[in-house]
Amino acid sequence: MDAILLTGDSDYNQNLYYKTHFLAEGLIYLEVNGEGTLITSEMERGRAEKESSVHTVRTLREFGFEEAMQELNDRTRAFTTALSRAIRDSGADRLIVGPDFPALLADNFRLEGIDVQIDPKLLDAARRQKSEQEIAAIEESQRATERAAGRAVEVLRDSEVHGDTLHYNGIPLTMERLRSEIEVSLVRDGMDPVSPITAAGRGAADPHWIGHGPIRPGDSLVLDIFPRSKTTRYFSDMTRTVVKGRPSQVLARMYEATLQAQEAAFAQIRAGANGKDVHQAAVDAFREAGFDGDTGPRYIHSTGHGVGLDIHEAPGLGTLDVELQENEVVTVEPGLYDPEIGAVRIEDIVVVTKDGYRNLTRFPKQFEI
Amino acid sequence: MDAILLTGDSDYNQNLYYKTHFLAEGLIYLEVNGEGTLITSEMERGRAEKESSVHTVRTLREFGFEEAMQELNDRTRAFTTALSRAIRDSGADRLIVGPDFPALLADNFRLEGIDVQIDPKLLDAARRQKSEQEIAAIEESQRATERAAGRAVEVLRDSEVHGDTLHYNGIPLTMERLRSEIEVSLVRDGMDPVSPITAAGRGAADPHWIGHGPIRPGDSLVLDIFPRSKTTRYFSDMTRTVVKGRPSQVLARMYEATLQAQEAAFAQIRAGANGKDVHQAAVDAFREAGFDGDTGPRYIHSTGHGVGLDIHEAPGLGTLDVELQENEVVTVEPGLYDPEIGAVRIEDIVVVTKDGYRNLTRFPKQFEI
Repeated sequence: MDAILLTGDSDYNQNLYYKTHFLAEGLIYLEVNGEGTLITSEMERGRAEKESSVHTVRTLREFGFEEAMQELNDRTRAFTTALSRAIRDSGADRLIVGPDFPALLADNFRLEGIDVQIDPKLLDAARRQKSEQEIAAIEESQRATERAAGRAVEVLRDSEVHGDTLHYNGIPLTMERLRSEIEVSLVRDGMDPVSPITAAGRGAADPHWIGHGPIRPGDSLVLDIFPRSKTTRYFSDMTRTVVKGRPSQVLARMYEATLQAQEAAFAQIRAGANGKDVHQAAVDAFREAGFDGDTGPRYIHSTGHGVGLDIHEAPGLGTLDVELQENEVVTVEPGLYDPEIGAVRIEDIVVVTKDGYRNLTRFPKQFEI
Repeated sequence: MDAILLTGDSDYNQNLYYKTHFLAEGLIYLEVNGEGTLITSEMERGRAEKESSVHTVRTLREFGFEEAMQELNDRTRAFTTALSRAIRDSGADRLIVGPDFPALLADNFRLEGIDVQIDPKLLDAARRQKSEQEIAAIEESQRATERAAGRAVEVLRDSEVHGDTLHYNGIPLTMERLRSEIEVSLVRDGMDPVSPITAAGRGAADPHWIGHGPIRPGDSLVLDIFPRSKTTRYFSDMTRTVVKGRPSQVLARMYEATLQAQEAAFAQIRAGANGKDVHQAAVDAFREAGFDGDTGPRYIHSTGHGVGLDIHEAPGLGTLDVELQENEVVTVEPGLYDPEIGAVRIEDIVVVTKDGYRNLTRFPKQFEI
């Protein structure tokens, strides 16, 4: 019989959170025959019984952790000794663990004579297809994302062009300041803001640059906002590109092409479609619009990714084959990047349906502010 | 010759951040003979060259990742195949990895014939002793922590007692609202607020309960604030317990005893001291004050922990032997917990010095507001 073992800090390990709905360090979840047991420290037991979704809560002490600690004077070995007892008590003879499971623990379990098998896709299938409740949680995070984006647009609207700088409330408007406005809006909505991107000008050609320094009129400004709800733990993800002042002709062409690439990608999405075809549709649309990837602004990343308890999760919409399924939630985010010009990226978040998709994003796509 | 390998998401893996000062997913750091190499994806290369502290930046493609991917059609195996080449190119014949290194990768490297050794304390010694720059970073985070605590105290001061509720700006003051005020202050200071604890009343007897619901006059309120700087990535950590209105006699006694326990713990701290003795001093002080751990309010956790790039890192001040060294940064945070009464915890953050300690905390300890 197999036992699934998840362990670590459920703030980071989303499989662990998915199965327990409980936030703690050094947490253990053991599942045999569909029956889950949460194993905590003595200190966390009371909170686990109140907050966790797992019916059975036990503590490491009950499996002889304290005695093992006294005997071995080594926390890791005492931990695996106690857990080995829990596993054997459950009747399991094989341990299934996920891709992040530490070698330190796996090696120790193997020394205890336990067969450890790693499943690189453990819980991927379950987590890919969202329940109604999960989709509602993502939509709620998306509404907070849109309120924050709205605040950023408001600040830009209230800014004034002074020569080659923008002024807000009488002082130059920086990317840091704009990011702080977004973060404050998110925090007031009960969100963890993570690290919003407010990247203007040429630097934005690095898609992960978060943005530093003054915002110039006429520069494209990428606003990529992907907070997590502190209540539900679900993320959302949206990008808008805006410009205060008049964009150059090439920026305007880049924006139009990106809109078309996104529409082309959308048109491919439905249950049963191949994620690779969604990505290829965006690549083809860019080529048709004159952005062929050889010179000038280029499309340098994949078209989307799943979103849930992790900001990046399966399925990916890139160069690998993957069959989309109903109720998967994915981003669609084509973009163009040029170190001499800057960047344009437009990202919505959608639910895959039987015949197409439902867009969870309501925020308008307006380039010029 | 040994090679140290760190890999993963440097947002979570602090050894990886410590060595690279670069934030990215799927990052690789390889060190042979003290010479580090950062290996990134093609997309991250430019940003890595600009932002990272590692001199040599290469990409996985240079070690044959794309060919391996085409041949094997398996990301993990292609990853270890390319990295095995990088390791052999470096002249190393043994791989040293840390406690979180995934078994999935370790197993694959072993299949490639590479000897993988796990060092559960990899980089602990280096990270424990802070440089002047690291201490300055923690102090800066502490100043932001204190501004946020100041904001919370201000809100409590401006609140009014209406029967058995507190009102702020005309509406009942909740723990959520107070937490939001703390978070906004932290965000405006460029901090990641993580998850401040604003726990009032009986529920606070669970030391990790973050707090939900209205704050009542006379209840003890635990404010535990431990944000991370988005600029330096260093945490700080401080707890104050306050009460709006008159505390009960037993709460007042708990507060006094906790102050004394903290002083007793402080008195033990110096380079060369045993962390276990620091903890025992706090336990003894509580016992002398009449809190013996058998009945009534109890001291149920250890006395402190190291703080740096991780909020909880070595050395711990608990029941295990550990020799304190100069320039280690630790918290000192005794507390008393009773499900019928609530909690008191007082936490400062200090630097261990040759003859004692330097307290980085400036925030006053005032129980009644």
